[in-house]
This record gives sequence, structure tokens and C-alpha cells, in this order.
Amino acid sequence: MSVVVIAGERDREAWRRPIQERLPDIEILAWPDIGDPGAVEIAVVHHDAIDVLERFPNLRAVIGMWAGVDHILTRPGLPDVPIARMVDPLIARDIGHYVVLHALRHVRSMPQMAANQRARRWQPVAPPPVELRAGILGMGAVGTAAARMLRDLGFAVRGWTRTPRAGGGIPCLAGRAALAEVLSAADICVCTLPLTAATEGIVNAGTLARLPRGAYLINAGRGRHVVEEDLLAALESGQLAGAALDVLREEPPPADSPFWDHPRVTITPHNAADPRPEAVAGALAANIRRVLAGTPMLNLVDRDRGY
Amino acid sequence: MSVVVIAGERDREAWRRPIQERLPDIEILAWPDIGDPGAVEIAVVHHDAIDVLERFPNLRAVIGMWAGVDHILTRPGLPDVPIARMVDPLIARDIGHYVVLHALRHVRSMPQMAANQRARRWQPVAPPPVELRAGILGMGAVGTAAARMLRDLGFAVRGWTRTPRAGGGIPCLAGRAALAEVLSAADICVCTLPLTAATEGIVNAGTLARLPRGAYLINAGRGRHVVEEDLLAALESGQLAGAALDVLREEPPPADSPFWDHPRVTITPHNAADPRPEAVAGALAANIRRVLAGTPMLNLVDRDRGY
Repeated sequence: MSVVVIAGERDREAWRRPIQERLPDIEILAWPDIGDPGAVEIAVVHHDAIDVLERFPNLRAVIGMWAGVDHILTRPGLPDVPIARMVDPLIARDIGHYVVLHALRHVRSMPQMAANQRARRWQPVAPPPVELRAGILGMGAVGTAAARMLRDLGFAVRGWTRTPRAGGGIPCLAGRAALAEVLSAADICVCTLPLTAATEGIVNAGTLARLPRGAYLINAGRGRHVVEEDLLAALESGQLAGAALDVLREEPPPADSPFWDHPRVTITPHNAADPRPEAVAGALAANIRRVLAGTPMLNLVDRDRGY
Repeated sequence: MSVVVIAGERDREAWRRPIQERLPDIEILAWPDIGDPGAVEIAVVHHDAIDVLERFPNLRAVIGMWAGVDHILTRPGLPDVPIARMVDPLIARDIGHYVVLHALRHVRSMPQMAANQRARRWQPVAPPPVELRAGILGMGAVGTAAARMLRDLGFAVRGWTRTPRAGGGIPCLAGRAALAEVLSAADICVCTLPLTAATEGIVNAGTLARLPRGAYLINAGRGRHVVEEDLLAALESGQLAGAALDVLREEPPPADSPFWDHPRVTITPHNAADPRPEAVAGALAANIRRVLAGTPMLNLVDRDRGY
């Protein structure tokens, strides 16, 4: 029996070692150095390193290192085994910080002030609005962390979820019919949804039109949540003041992508958060122990729901 | 009896009107339209508009619109009357946001990511430190607000004050001997001190050397808190990774100031917060009522202490 860690282009040993240290009695291997594929019963996978799962005939579980599992679930030939995803407070903190950073950059006119500095202009800009409002689409661990941080900074925050769930202390509406209401007060509109058939393309011409004019979009979900042509049109018309996108439909974006040099779009290379081996090894080891004990894993993915 | 509002280059009527609305029975005038200077008993002043106070022979009180009063206290010929300063939650919120924005810009390598976007490079940067630490010099309303916001974002925060005071729930050390200890853990070092004889030049070669190597300085106090040559030397040596300066010794900075195009310095035009007439008119009106009733004003300045 062995566990394989598939870390993609990351430092394989940095991922294998902290799990091995926590499970000294179990053979933890780093792909591709795995010996007999038939001995592999558990795979710990990064979301961009999942194209080898079909090689393990006796796989009993897949454990994602990452919050999102859409890349895993949409994989053709995915074995029919339980899948767990990562819920890590540090990932939630870092994505929360990404959201706060870009919300404050916008309300405090930071791009304009930076341009003024480059032009050697000493010119006060309009102060931030007195009333700051945000809407968070997706209130899992990440969305809830971002919502609480914005609330603690004085923002009026509302969350939206597709299906009802506890909002973690943040006022929260659920269901398609309520989406327009949350959007209508989302001067800062944040997407932290999981990518599923029900959420793909949710940021489109129709939903963007529901935002207050001059709203700002922050996408920390997936590129495919956004219909990019509709986003560009909303920027062009002034309906959107700007956008911060950590994720895009095509990553990296092609050379001719309009996002590279759009004056009101900030793109970052899908690293609002990056899981860190030392921070998540304990959670990974705990789920490995559960599989071996026959106990259901924590943070089990519902394949029908998609997260 | 009249009250004069001296708003400098700001919109005089925007400042006069909301105070007048709250005090319909009192004559509120906007400088320079004041009629008889001898009738003026109270002056409400912006910090850059105080060079006329000596013209009012019967002045009984000066009420600042702003948190800092160093410009008023150091004015030659300042009448010997009580002075109040502004303590406004919105100013504290906005300066707190300024601090949070620049702290997160630094720990999340935002300038490097922006440069990557401009160069059309899709290149993840090193993730933020797991442990985030900040030290706040000055724990008045503004410093305490900034400290709490950083704490709510997961930073380990310590405050420092010259003389002991309640830290508002933030661990806080007081006195010169404790300064080095607070600085030693201040990966993000924030100055929100009042400018007094005791704090001028407090950010100098000696104190900068106490910071962890690669620290980041955020100055939301006054330009004269910082010995600018020492700051530049610390940037040059790598002791400081960067600085965000909302205030400078000379504002605007001269054309040949090294701060305009320093690659690791962000300057903003002394507008981390700007008092807003509607937000502070109630507090200004309340202090005017107190003067007329013979009651001590709120937020009275201690001239010896300097704030």
C-alpha cells in the first residue's frame, strides 16, 4: 500500500516530506517515482497535475491540495472513488487579503495616485465613498473569510449562495431570484464561487447590468465564471469601473489578450493563494488516515453538486 | 458673536453650511467674508488655513477640523485660547484603510505583479509570509483603528506609545526603552504619531536599524517624523524593503525629490484621509455649543503634550 503525491511542476519533495513526517508508518511517494502503480491506493493531487490518476488500478481516494476541484471533476476517466478538497485557513486568509487589497486599491483610487506619482503630480484624489458596500458571490470558507475581513473594515457586506447555507455571521441571500438583489448593492462585487455547471458564466451581461453603475469586479474564483466579452463591454460602457482578475479563461492569457494592457484591469497569475506544504500537510495526513481506517474523509466533494 | 470657518482652499460654503444647519441660532461665517473681526469668538480651522487667527482680538476658542494640530500649535502669535482637535471615526477608518492597503500591497508583492502585467509576464511571485507582523507607533484613535484592522486580517500587531495609555485591545508598550522591542517585530512599521518635539525625527537611522531586515515603513503621521536621508539610506542598504509615505517634510515635494521616482517608495498627496464637512459638522457644532455654554470642549489639546 502506498500514497502518491502528484505535485505537478512544484517541488515534489517539499510536498512529500511533511506528509511523510506525519505518517512515518506509511509509504508516501512522489510522482513519478512510484514503483508499482498497483500498490497506490491514495493520490494527493495538485489541481494542475491530475492527468495520471487512471494509471492506478487500485485507487481508493483522491485528496486535492487545493480549494477548487473543478479540474479534477471534469477529468475524463476519473476513477469512481471519494474525492476530498482542501479547506485551509491560510488559503482563506490569503484570498481574503487579495480581495481586501483590490477593494481598497479601487475605493482609494490607488491606480490614479500611482499614475500621478509617475507624472510627478501632487494632486489629491476624491476621497473614498462614506458608505462602502460589497457583495460576495460564494460563501464557502474563502468567501466567508473575505466577507468578514471587509465587514471588519467597515464595508456593508452581503453574501450570495446558490443554495441556502449559514453565512458565518454575514447577511446572506440564496438562490437565483435573490442574486439581483445582492448585485444591486455590490459596489465591490467579489466572486469566490466554486466552478460548476450552475455557476459557469455567472458573471455575464445580464448580471453585470444589475450592479450599481461604476462597480468594481474582483474574481478570485475561476476564469470560466466570467463571460470575458461581456466584462470588456461593461468596462467599455462604464458600467464597471474596473476589475481585478486572479483567474482567466485561458491561463496564461494569449499574447493578444486585451487584459494585459487594459488600463482598468489588474491581472495576477492565479496566485491569490497558493497552498503551502507545511500548512496543509496536517490536513492531508488526517484524510489519509481516515481512508485507511475506513472513515469518511473530511471536506468530501459531492460530485453532483460539483464542490 | 460669530463663528468663523477658515477652510483654506477648500469649498468654504460646503464647510460653513452643515455647521450652520446644526446651529441655526448662531452666526456662522466663512473666511474671508466675516464682517467685524471683533465679533468673532470661535474659529473653526483647517490645518493649512491658520495664518489669520491673530486678526480676531476676542477669540475664545480654536476648533481644528483635522486630527493633527501641530500646524496650529507651532503658529507664532497663536492666541492663548483653548484648542480642540477632531476625532472622527471616518478619519480613523480612512487612514486605517490606507495602512491596510499599503501593508497588503507590500506583503502580496503588488508592485512586482503590476510590473509583470505591464511586461506581459505571467509569473507567480513568492507567497506572503505565513506570519505577518506589524508595529504601530502612536495608538490614538487613528493608530488604534489601523492596529485593529490589521489584527482582524491576521497580523500579529503591537502598538507603541510615548506615554502609557490603554491600547484598545491591542498589546501595547510605552516609553523610549520599549521602542526597540516593538520595532524588532515590526515587519510592517506604521507611524500614526502626533508630531511633537518628542516625536519629530523618531524614524531615523537608529530606529530604522532596529526593524527586521526587509521591513516596510508606512508613514501616515507627519513628514517631520522621518529623517528622510536616513530613510533613503535604509532603502539603499536593503534594511527597508520599501515605504509608503502619505506625508513628506516638504509638501508637495520639490521637483528634484528622490521620492518621485524611487522604485520602492509610494507617495500619496497627504490624503490618507480628508475630513468631510457632513461627517464632522456634528462634532464641530457640539464643541461650538460647549464654548458658548462655558463647558470644556471635547478632544481638548494639551499644549505642553502637543496633541
